[in-house]
Amino acid sequence: MSRRLYHLVSREGHPAYRGNSGTKIIEVSGVQVGGERPVIIAGPCAVESREQTLQIARAVKEAGADMLRGGAYKPRTSPYEFQGLREKGLEILAEAKEKTGLPIVTEVMDPRLVSLVGQYADVLQIGSRNMQNFPLLVEVGRCNKPILLKRGLCATLEEWLCSAEYIAKEGNTDIILCERGVRTAASGEYDRYTLDLNVIRPLKVKTFLPVIVDPSHSTGAAEMVPYASRAAISCGAHGLIIEVIGEETDRQSIKCDAAQGIRPSTLKKIITSIQV
Amino acid sequence: MSRRLYHLVSREGHPAYRGNSGTKIIEVSGVQVGGERPVIIAGPCAVESREQTLQIARAVKEAGADMLRGGAYKPRTSPYEFQGLREKGLEILAEAKEKTGLPIVTEVMDPRLVSLVGQYADVLQIGSRNMQNFPLLVEVGRCNKPILLKRGLCATLEEWLCSAEYIAKEGNTDIILCERGVRTAASGEYDRYTLDLNVIRPLKVKTFLPVIVDPSHSTGAAEMVPYASRAAISCGAHGLIIEVIGEETDRQSIKCDAAQGIRPSTLKKIITSIQV
Amino acid sequence: MSRRLYHLVSREGHPAYRGNSGTKIIEVSGVQVGGERPVIIAGPCAVESREQTLQIARAVKEAGADMLRGGAYKPRTSPYEFQGLREKGLEILAEAKEKTGLPIVTEVMDPRLVSLVGQYADVLQIGSRNMQNFPLLVEVGRCNKPILLKRGLCATLEEWLCSAEYIAKEGNTDIILCERGVRTAASGEYDRYTLDLNVIRPLKVKTFLPVIVDPSHSTGAAEMVPYASRAAISCGAHGLIIEVIGEETDRQSIKCDAAQGIRPSTLKKIITSIQV
Amino acid sequence: MSRRLYHLVSREGHPAYRGNSGTKIIEVSGVQVGGERPVIIAGPCAVESREQTLQIARAVKEAGADMLRGGAYKPRTSPYEFQGLREKGLEILAEAKEKTGLPIVTEVMDPRLVSLVGQYADVLQIGSRNMQNFPLLVEVGRCNKPILLKRGLCATLEEWLCSAEYIAKEGNTDIILCERGVRTAASGEYDRYTLDLNVIRPLKVKTFLPVIVDPSHSTGAAEMVPYASRAAISCGAHGLIIEVIGEETDRQSIKCDAAQGIRPSTLKKIITSIQV
Repeated sequence: MSRRLYHLVSREGHPAYRGNSGTKIIEVSGVQVGGERPVIIAGPCAVESREQTLQIARAVKEAGADMLRGGAYKPRTSPYEFQGLREKGLEILAEAKEKTGLPIVTEVMDPRLVSLVGQYADVLQIGSRNMQNFPLLVEVGRCNKPILLKRGLCATLEEWLCSAEYIAKEGNTDIILCERGVRTAASGEYDRYTLDLNVIRPLKVKTFLPVIVDPSHSTGAAEMVPYASRAAISCGAHGLIIEVIGEETDRQSIKCDAAQGIRPSTLKKIITSIQV
Repeated sequence: MSRRLYHLVSREGHPAYRGNSGTKIIEVSGVQVGGERPVIIAGPCAVESREQTLQIARAVKEAGADMLRGGAYKPRTSPYEFQGLREKGLEILAEAKEKTGLPIVTEVMDPRLVSLVGQYADVLQIGSRNMQNFPLLVEVGRCNKPILLKRGLCATLEEWLCSAEYIAKEGNTDIILCERGVRTAASGEYDRYTLDLNVIRPLKVKTFLPVIVDPSHSTGAAEMVPYASRAAISCGAHGLIIEVIGEETDRQSIKCDAAQGIRPSTLKKIITSIQV
Repeated sequence: MSRRLYHLVSREGHPAYRGNSGTKIIEVSGVQVGGERPVIIAGPCAVESREQTLQIARAVKEAGADMLRGGAYKPRTSPYEFQGLREKGLEILAEAKEKTGLPIVTEVMDPRLVSLVGQYADVLQIGSRNMQNFPLLVEVGRCNKPILLKRGLCATLEEWLCSAEYIAKEGNTDIILCERGVRTAASGEYDRYTLDLNVIRPLKVKTFLPVIVDPSHSTGAAEMVPYASRAAISCGAHGLIIEVIGEETDRQSIKCDAAQGIRPSTLKKIITSIQV
Repeated sequence: MSRRLYHLVSREGHPAYRGNSGTKIIEVSGVQVGGERPVIIAGPCAVESREQTLQIARAVKEAGADMLRGGAYKPRTSPYEFQGLREKGLEILAEAKEKTGLPIVTEVMDPRLVSLVGQYADVLQIGSRNMQNFPLLVEVGRCNKPILLKRGLCATLEEWLCSAEYIAKEGNTDIILCERGVRTAASGEYDRYTLDLNVIRPLKVKTFLPVIVDPSHSTGAAEMVPYASRAAISCGAHGLIIEVIGEETDRQSIKCDAAQGIRPSTLKKIITSIQV
């Protein structure tokens, strides 16, 4: 079946990757995703202010991160929750990049904003809720930036690769897959989602695209992030995307996903512990 | 918590519905959704051709349906599956409406097309995959058409109502909720999704919006549709949205969701059996 | 696959039921399970006292129930929860049967007690947690009483029928299947489990055994029981097993599953509403 | 809530473990479970023959395993699948222990056989399907052997600890918890179950009992076992229980769970890779 549903992103469909275990290396402003060394993307859940973002950017750079993540447009369950600083947030991210040299990963939710977000971002993130937002996938497939495609909350592996195919079909095969936990009957009692590391090996059999893991959303608890991070690398993930809060920041003051952000000092320990 | 996350669509937040069990009646070109009589929306999965659509439209009208459903823009797992006839499909639906008098329910996936689709549709459908496509919700909240908001594949009741709130917050509270099955560990062995009729009563406690059920996607099998339809009405659903194929059509020739479409003669039996 | 894993309980494996839609009618002390008329099994969650049990037994008889249910041995999540009156409970059930004429359905959890419970019960119930307790299945397969086999909390249809086959293989094919809700990502927010009515039609295709539904555990809320009951019958269930509390009993005083028991007056309305 | 439902196995309920992160060390014939060094339990899924068992026992000993696992009584979905060699299997395990010095871990399913199995086993295993087989839990609570309690297929953490409490309440607190994958909507496409490593940290907060992981059943694929093994140790598991097949054995010839057994040479690599 898979041959009909997707082929551009499939290992068997690609002459360079068929029959081997190679991964496409995706270059992001000098950082390689998909190579031997796990890539670390870290930063705040949301860009809340210039000061907060620059401070965290410097801290994650110092801790050893390769790229900066941060949301300017935030997909929030309720319309009354903080929706992000929008274009102002993008400008802050641009300044953070200028100051630290870290490439920027940020989410785009609206096909009408792909061009704008693409002017600031080095990697465009498609969030879980939008994994099957097909007009958005088509639009990012037409921009010339690498795409980070998060797995949907209850997506199958085949559906996920079909979504990647939507992007690839428009000409963009610089796609990084990101496992971020699935919703199950086990979720919610002691974690936010169920981290599904079982998916990594079968993904690598089916596709040559690099796959990273989000230990922050998939656990929902800062205390669990170092464990999930090391486990992800043990399973062959090509990198991690981790939410970080300020070293001294009061967790109560954070506007978004406050429970799961780790401190820069913890990030540093994680990076040290996963070094090959 | 719910008070903070949504209030415009909540029963307790509305002076006319607080403390009672009333439902907002939504008028759709002369058809009432939310009243005593269950409303029946029926038609093809996708508009595949003028002939197929007009034929099915007449047949469902004849069988007793109140509105015509049919997809012009189809959200398909793979980019290589039939994507719909797009604007041409909308024109066919308009003709079907003209010929039968049935109001049209059709899906919109792209915020840039809300205005266009709104010129043809009497009800704009937001599909499961887009339940948390927030820019799209905002856009349909600004049009003056009733919205049919399908539940996401693994959405909680609270998340569903928060998505309705996104629409309501823009000024549009003509929202029809639609249960269409959730993905569970039980799904896929003998059905496509797990029909969750347990959600209807709690929904009615939380909101005054009408709720209908899709027995087609939630079972994925034509043989199960009559049973699921009657069960849904037994649980208090205000209506049904059902996929119908031609009385003589070869199931193999259908481009979309071929296994679940029922025949017009079956539709007629369902409508008879659920009459109060 | 199914041919190898089970055949005694499969429709295609049985000369009398192959190719038709017939159901095996199971006689329980004069009550027929599997016929046209839905059978109603009702009673307390647990036998808590002689007075409570006799009172409810009379009330459900009066309301139109066909059999009395009640637990003497209760499978409870914690060892500190009420475990049932055990043999004393069985004696109370025997008295209730004597006074009302209602056959008794009661659970057995321990293979060493099958013989004892079988002396009192007209139907031996295997609970969800024991659907794959194979030594217990073998033991009840050797007794000459009908068995009510509840579906496991996350059992597939195939696993369920394989468990029935364990019983049938020992010589007992008087097996009543009972859907009682499955645990899913949707469970727990507004219900206790997710009632899976989709399973009924495929079950009937695979097996000739009658299938009933438990609307009490599958919803966990008394308010939802009438709706789930009617929906189950709409889907072709051969009967219902419903938890009932005293008409005036204070819900707080009940030792087991207090939220889901309905009043006898409600039971009467349900029975009236489902009459063919 | 937890205080009422369980306390003997809870960290906060135990003076020696309250407020710290200590683990109870369980001695199994000279092997310590719960200490710094991860314990490795390895062996065949089922004892199929004397030769097969002795060969694998020697191989896992050689590879560095600490204990031998192997099923004499096998819980099989269908009654027509291989049910184990029963007492003959226990005798073979005893011989394997004598020849290798490895303590034996084997499953007991029937409360009537606890005493017999206890004569051969060093650790009695309670399988997933029996996590809430309460008469069995009571019975193993009364024997003086350590118990390996596997998590149920869709058990919550609280239910799991309540089941441990059933054992502890009878006087036996030598309980090893074992995560072995849960059934979710994601299971079955590329794995057998979804390995839930998120549960380990919260378990350690709630209880002082050691927790190990079964990378074989939780993935269902030999290729994934080394990854899941390392990930489990990364998450703080106190050990692993792994299914092993003969170095040269034809996978097709195996009677039980053929796809998931690893070779002894792979086991050796896993043990090397997880050494602290």
